[in-house]
Order: sequence, then C-alpha cells, then structure tokens
Amino acid sequence: MSDKTGDLSQEELNARHAEKMRKKKAARDKIMATKTIEKGLVIVHTGKGKGKSTAGFGMVFRSLGHGHRVGVVQFVKGRIETGERLALERFSDLVTVKRMGEGFTWETQDRQRDIDAARAAWEAAKAMIRSGDYRLVLCDELNIVLRYDYLPVEEVVAFLKDEKPADVHVVITGRNARDELIEIADLVTEMEQVKHPFRSGVKPQEGIEF
Amino acid sequence: MSDKTGDLSQEELNARHAEKMRKKKAARDKIMATKTIEKGLVIVHTGKGKGKSTAGFGMVFRSLGHGHRVGVVQFVKGRIETGERLALERFSDLVTVKRMGEGFTWETQDRQRDIDAARAAWEAAKAMIRSGDYRLVLCDELNIVLRYDYLPVEEVVAFLKDEKPADVHVVITGRNARDELIEIADLVTEMEQVKHPFRSGVKPQEGIEF
Repeated sequence: MSDKTGDLSQEELNARHAEKMRKKKAARDKIMATKTIEKGLVIVHTGKGKGKSTAGFGMVFRSLGHGHRVGVVQFVKGRIETGERLALERFSDLVTVKRMGEGFTWETQDRQRDIDAARAAWEAAKAMIRSGDYRLVLCDELNIVLRYDYLPVEEVVAFLKDEKPADVHVVITGRNARDELIEIADLVTEMEQVKHPFRSGVKPQEGIEF
Repeated sequence: MSDKTGDLSQEELNARHAEKMRKKKAARDKIMATKTIEKGLVIVHTGKGKGKSTAGFGMVFRSLGHGHRVGVVQFVKGRIETGERLALERFSDLVTVKRMGEGFTWETQDRQRDIDAARAAWEAAKAMIRSGDYRLVLCDELNIVLRYDYLPVEEVVAFLKDEKPADVHVVITGRNARDELIEIADLVTEMEQVKHPFRSGVKPQEGIEF
C-alpha cells in the first residue's frame, strides 16, 4: 500500500479512502437489498480444523441472546465439553440439551452400542426439530456418526429436505461431512487447520479445548 | 464400507471394529501423554468463510462456563452482533466488553476516525491482556484493522511475543490475517466458505448472522 501512496498527503489519502469506501458501501447496499428470503437453514461446519463445534455453540449462544428457544443434541459424548455445558446452565429457561452419544467410538470400542446411541440421538433430534418449539437445533458431531455409517445418510437428508419445518435452523458439526449432506445444505463452512499447538507439546487446556 | 465387509456377520464386524478402535485409543492415549505444556495461546481465526467471530465467541462462552474472567474488544463496530451482546449480559459478573470500532470502514468512510478508533481499541486490549485479570481476551476483527494498516502489525506482534503474560489466551478474528501474525500464533484456523445462502437470495437472519 505504501508504495503506491507514498507521495500522497494524509489528506489526499483520506479523500481517496472515503471515495473508495463510498463506492463499496453503495455496492454492498445494492447487493443486500436483493436478499429478502427468510428461511430456516441447514448449516454444516466441517473440516479438520478447530472451531466446528465451537462455532456451532457460538450460534447457540447468539440465538439464546435473542431469547430464542434452542435444542442441542450431542451425538458423541466423551468430548470434553464442560465449559459449554456449564455456560448453557445460565440459559436453562431457553435451552434443552440432550447428551446421547456413548463417547468417542475409540473410547467405547463397542460398535453396536454406538449404533444404538446414534439412533436414539437422531430420534431425539428429529423430535426437537419437528416440534417447532426450537428456533435452532444443534446436532453436534452428527457428521461423525454418519461417516461411520451408524445412521443412514439418506434418512437424515430426506428428513431435512421433507420434514424439517421451514422456519427451524439446523446446525450440523463434525469432520468428514458426507457429500449428500453438503449437497442439500444452505451454508457450509470448512474449518482448515493451519497450525495446531499440540504439535509443540501443548496439552488440552480448560477454556480452550474443553 | 459395505463392499469390503459384505461377507462378514454383524458379530465379526463388531469384533473387527472393537480391535481397530482399541488400537486407535492406544495410539491416541500415547500421543496425548506427551502433551504436558500449559500456556496462554495466541489463536487466530481467519479465512473468507463464516464462523470466525462465532467460534471466537464460542470460546468466550466456554471459558465463562468455567468461571474464568474474559475480556472482549470489538475492533469493528457496526457488525450486527446483538445476539452475542445480549447473551453476554447473563455473564456480567465475569465478562468485560469494549465496543471500540466506529463501524465498518465502508460505513464510516472516514479513514482518520477509523485509525483513531483502532488505536483506542488496541490500547484497551493491551491493558486487558497486561492486567492479568482475564484468562482470555478476544480481539474481534483485529485482523481487519491490521489489514488496512490502521495499526502497525509489528507493534501487535511484538506485544503478543514480549509482553503478553504467559497464562493469558488471546483470540484474534477477521479475514485476511497478516502473515506476521500467523507466524507467531499457536493455533490458526482458516474458515473456508463452501456454500453461502446469500447466493440464493436469503437475507441475514436474527440468530444466524446477528
């Protein structure tokens, strides 16, 4: 930036900036005016990086801030998620949390129990979504059980397409999201890991990993 | 999966799964045993996708859940972030929020005012981090003001390297993170946009975008 603007006075620089930003605002306002549809979204957070569940819970808290009722179903327990759980206790008037998973599959080492737990969690999630009582339902780590074929992806996709009430948002997290799910989702973000502190021997810490 | 396992009984499939998961758990436990360092991290969320600030606020709520004191500095106001702000009100005993930015730069169209606001926000963030009163400090959208050269990146990097207390976590969000910052960060996640509903004419909605 300094190469091009080295000869300009601060005043000229500021004037140029104001003009550029005026154009940017006009373009942005014009685009946003075309966005008029309101609808319940299917939102997917996937990828190998951190932040998938964290951003999912961030949306939960944002929605709770607005006074919406929110449902949370945890498909994989054993994730250390004490912090979120404790924070949600301050919203017990608005949030329903179901911790259904039986732990990471490498913790339980029992495939049939994992399949049963996945089924129970999905039935709980469907009931919450169908009820219309919740503006947003977070299906935390659903992608993991879909990836292990503990639930048929076709069933989940068909439900989200055909049975989800139009005004309910559903947020689905977990790495390795299935293509079939990405296909029908409205908003998909992939969290890419650029740098991770475990590589330098740093251990999981309270408030960061859990 | 079914191709390879079609001839196996459910029992054989379950046994094979149990063995595979036992090995996975052993490998994971061995790796985690080497992670022993505890330290305050510099965490960066960047990329063009959604979820950068949302995951930042997710970490804030997680930390608050643990009863930690948390500081939040918003470098760019005008972002519609009502939901987070309202949710944070339930943690007024633990959280300090400073909304310093003067709005997106294309809203204010006044470069000098943006520079002054960025400077004031950074001084507030430094004071919070230095004080040691906060376990985690979120510098929301700091990347944006660094990208516009409203603050010298060298100054920010030097502070984080040399003056940040060892046990304080600092989370920095915003697209276009500067390379100098990524270089010194402990944890960097890039949020990639795979699919966005604005493309189908859907407008920003309460609880989702704000």
